[in-house]
Amino acid sequence: MEKIRIETNVFLPMPVVLVGTVAGGRPNIMTAGWASRVNAEPPMIAIGINRAHATAEGIVENGSFSVNVPHAGMVEATDYCGLVSGKNTDKSAVFDLFSGDLDGAPMIRACPLAMECRLVRAVDLPTDYLFIGEIVGAYADADCLVDGKPDMERVNPLTLTMPDNTYRTIGVSVGKAWEIGTHLKKGA
Amino acid sequence: MEKIRIETNVFLPMPVVLVGTVAGGRPNIMTAGWASRVNAEPPMIAIGINRAHATAEGIVENGSFSVNVPHAGMVEATDYCGLVSGKNTDKSAVFDLFSGDLDGAPMIRACPLAMECRLVRAVDLPTDYLFIGEIVGAYADADCLVDGKPDMERVNPLTLTMPDNTYRTIGVSVGKAWEIGTHLKKGA
Repeated sequence: MEKIRIETNVFLPMPVVLVGTVAGGRPNIMTAGWASRVNAEPPMIAIGINRAHATAEGIVENGSFSVNVPHAGMVEATDYCGLVSGKNTDKSAVFDLFSGDLDGAPMIRACPLAMECRLVRAVDLPTDYLFIGEIVGAYADADCLVDGKPDMERVNPLTLTMPDNTYRTIGVSVGKAWEIGTHLKKGA
Repeated sequence: MEKIRIETNVFLPMPVVLVGTVAGGRPNIMTAGWASRVNAEPPMIAIGINRAHATAEGIVENGSFSVNVPHAGMVEATDYCGLVSGKNTDKSAVFDLFSGDLDGAPMIRACPLAMECRLVRAVDLPTDYLFIGEIVGAYADADCLVDGKPDMERVNPLTLTMPDNTYRTIGVSVGKAWEIGTHLKKGA
């Protein structure tokens, strides 16, 4: 099929996370979808956030943030935290929070998976920051663990697609990675 | 539920993309999951890639790369491109390729969505690069477009969860973003 040239503001499927900071003197939680693991060792996470957000100011001020993975049942509170700004709304009581090793990185007890991150780089892009943080502590609910590691079917996270602006569960398996394409190797 | 501290090598749900470069003098395609939109305007994509990969060398050399979104039916060829290295395997004929405005950013015709990116920053992390590219051209199949924009249910992309190493379709809707949490706003 011939390709049609489209606008460049294209979106990949996104993980939905809640970013925890201390901003304006109080804990703040913001919903984000521009998030990815980066750097194998030590493990890091990168999150892209518009410079105007209270969350961006909190990360720059404290040099730390948390990344929390809500389960699908938390979709309404998760969406709410993306609808209102910490600059004019106190979101500190939306969730029960807990702390790890870092100041400035409040984590959400209801989230089955939470990570506290130490800021290692704030990449200054034209409209946004890309914050890169080392994961210094990770915490999970016992019933989400398989062999000591979080199993995503048990975590039951949300993903987001745009521009249909739809929160989704993770989908069904279509094959195993590093396995289903093995037969295409020459001599395999 | 009490939280259990786990290893920090934790993974979020990932979009599965095929990164196109010219490396070692030939087109090369590598599977990647550490990818995210970043920066609202101009639109950019960040991808995290281990420094040892042919893809990393190609991006540094050419200052460009492509990001291609395979549909779920391409799962075997997609997995294959993550199993073998462009350093010792010629992957230039796995897919029919096409070019846009940039040199060094071959795109995959079979992918319903493809973007050519001009490298704007190569963030040097301990084991990996985080490449940030401006999307200078985006191309889609006509039958994936709704109102001129790619609809992800029509694109039918893959996501990847780890450590269960499972390719998945996008899941079912659990609500609309910027909408389902509106009733939690004070006065709403």
